[in-house]
Amino acid sequence: MSTAGQVIRCKAAVAWESGKPLSIEEVEVAPPQKDEVRIKILFTSLCHTDVYFWDAKGQNPLFPRILGHEAGGIVESVGEGVTDLKPGDHVLPIFTGECKECPHCLSEESNMCDLLRINTDRGEMINDGKSRFSINGKPIYHFLGTSTFSEYTVVHVGQVAKINPEAPLDKVCVLSCGMSTGFGATVNVAKPKKGQSVAIFGLGAVGLAAAEGARVSGASRIIGVDLNPSRFELAKNFGVTEFVNPKDHNKPVQEVIAEMTGGGVDRSVECTGSIQAMISAFECVHDGWGVAVLVGVPNKDDAFKTHPVNLLNERTLKGTFFGNYKPRTDIPAVVERYMNKAFEYMLAGEGLRCMIRMDA
Amino acid sequence: MSTAGQVIRCKAAVAWESGKPLSIEEVEVAPPQKDEVRIKILFTSLCHTDVYFWDAKGQNPLFPRILGHEAGGIVESVGEGVTDLKPGDHVLPIFTGECKECPHCLSEESNMCDLLRINTDRGEMINDGKSRFSINGKPIYHFLGTSTFSEYTVVHVGQVAKINPEAPLDKVCVLSCGMSTGFGATVNVAKPKKGQSVAIFGLGAVGLAAAEGARVSGASRIIGVDLNPSRFELAKNFGVTEFVNPKDHNKPVQEVIAEMTGGGVDRSVECTGSIQAMISAFECVHDGWGVAVLVGVPNKDDAFKTHPVNLLNERTLKGTFFGNYKPRTDIPAVVERYMNKAFEYMLAGEGLRCMIRMDA
Repeated sequence: MSTAGQVIRCKAAVAWESGKPLSIEEVEVAPPQKDEVRIKILFTSLCHTDVYFWDAKGQNPLFPRILGHEAGGIVESVGEGVTDLKPGDHVLPIFTGECKECPHCLSEESNMCDLLRINTDRGEMINDGKSRFSINGKPIYHFLGTSTFSEYTVVHVGQVAKINPEAPLDKVCVLSCGMSTGFGATVNVAKPKKGQSVAIFGLGAVGLAAAEGARVSGASRIIGVDLNPSRFELAKNFGVTEFVNPKDHNKPVQEVIAEMTGGGVDRSVECTGSIQAMISAFECVHDGWGVAVLVGVPNKDDAFKTHPVNLLNERTLKGTFFGNYKPRTDIPAVVERYMNKAFEYMLAGEGLRCMIRMDA
Repeated sequence: MSTAGQVIRCKAAVAWESGKPLSIEEVEVAPPQKDEVRIKILFTSLCHTDVYFWDAKGQNPLFPRILGHEAGGIVESVGEGVTDLKPGDHVLPIFTGECKECPHCLSEESNMCDLLRINTDRGEMINDGKSRFSINGKPIYHFLGTSTFSEYTVVHVGQVAKINPEAPLDKVCVLSCGMSTGFGATVNVAKPKKGQSVAIFGLGAVGLAAAEGARVSGASRIIGVDLNPSRFELAKNFGVTEFVNPKDHNKPVQEVIAEMTGGGVDRSVECTGSIQAMISAFECVHDGWGVAVLVGVPNKDDAFKTHPVNLLNERTLKGTFFGNYKPRTDIPAVVERYMNKAFEYMLAGEGLRCMIRMDA
């Protein structure tokens, strides 16, 4: 029996208040409206961003809300005007979108869609400013347009990547956020050349994916920087060859790295969000050609600060968002790359992500 | 009668003390030693950098000294080991060098030679740590390895660009510093695409050359930013299409430019050295793809400061030194480009540079 056009009642994990345990509730999920897709979520994982907005410290509190954004699922039904997706398609919902019409989507370089760019403060669908989730008629807010901590969710078509149906959704769901962010930061933005040295700041899921990007680019040295030495063993699987713990040194880590490398690394990728790590990641690249790429999200009041001579000496500083991937155009190919075994170790890391099977 | 191997007595403008008028003296110029070239200077011009080190405020005072670094001349004689230059060659001495052997010279990207990189504190030749200038046996310090305010000077071969002898030295001498710095900042580093918008901060000689770089790149809009509105008329000859005087607005100039351009310019080039202009030049580029290039030299204690989200939104910040040109490899081609009339207006600007004819 088709559920298209019907309200679906299903289970979801609802955040009622900041910092309080999520509660599994029966929710009503309205049918998708114009340019929307309703997705049966099969697997979802927990990313730090979910925790930040659940905790809501220094963020706009918006409750009750269904969190979740790293996920994989199958299209249940589509709304008016949706032509490139149909029920049964395997998809990854993405926390940022691609309208394919704005200057950013038309640019070869940008993935920061004007219409569907990540908006953490928005709790409703852009079509009508309403939520598709409710409990007894009371609306529950969306999160990042994805809200994947629900058996069914409604997502704007511009935030849905259609992927190879043979890809294992329990594995590739992590490509919808952190893994692509880190991997893309290296291969799309830092672009190390074969034989170059790369420093990776932060060896969490994003940093390990960034290291994997350096490994597949043929980097000769990959220097992992983390305050937690227990992360080095796992990081070796992602190509990290050397480890620096800033706590082990009584000088700035950028000076330690400059000494290790005869003046600095060729590329660095910052995956922690700490402002001090950002400054170190920039100042540790070699003058003349070094490129530093910022990935981690800082606090609201942080200021990036450096002496301008560090720039004039021909260093480049860039930031990236979602690894510069366009969600609909590029993510299907990232999944193919995984299928072709290019990501040898990338998705093998136990404990990097806690996967939740939604239909269990 | 050849002067090779002999001490040459000639006129030079000597700075005896900081801030005191230069004094025309008869100096003795020793023959060039290993890897050195003695050049008869025919034309030299005055650049702000000469003035900074004459004034020596906030700079190491090093006196007596012969200043000057933008110049053109003819090789008089060469020292031991110099094979790629011979007496009679037309040359531009350059304030920074290219040894052709260090990692920077071997890199395709860098021009920041380890051996001969600009060093404002050095007053002697690197070969033996001695000066080639003297008055009655008392040594006079060199400046930037060039000291072109002298009828004859001795320069390391790595700081000498051999140019087409048909190029008019009274014109192309300005390509040895400011003009190449500005033009190269745009065409080698900012690299605007045809039809893009470019903001130029500072419409002095360097800024006008940067604007010319945007013009020959096919920029659709070139927005000149300067506190002096009288500079706009001349700037039009270099392709500047619009003018913004920060004094005319009661909001930051980056906001003014963002409003004029629907979110920001595609490229910006900062040619003032003011730290506030650097920050504005960075923050006025469009998110998603904007590139800001810093050229101007800041004060020692300046700090570049911005919110890291400006970077994470996919803006790029770079600095450049001498327009990323390698002095010996690239400058001869820049002179050719001038010869082929590509620099239509670039050297026509009256009053941008005061040229001094040395043999008059």
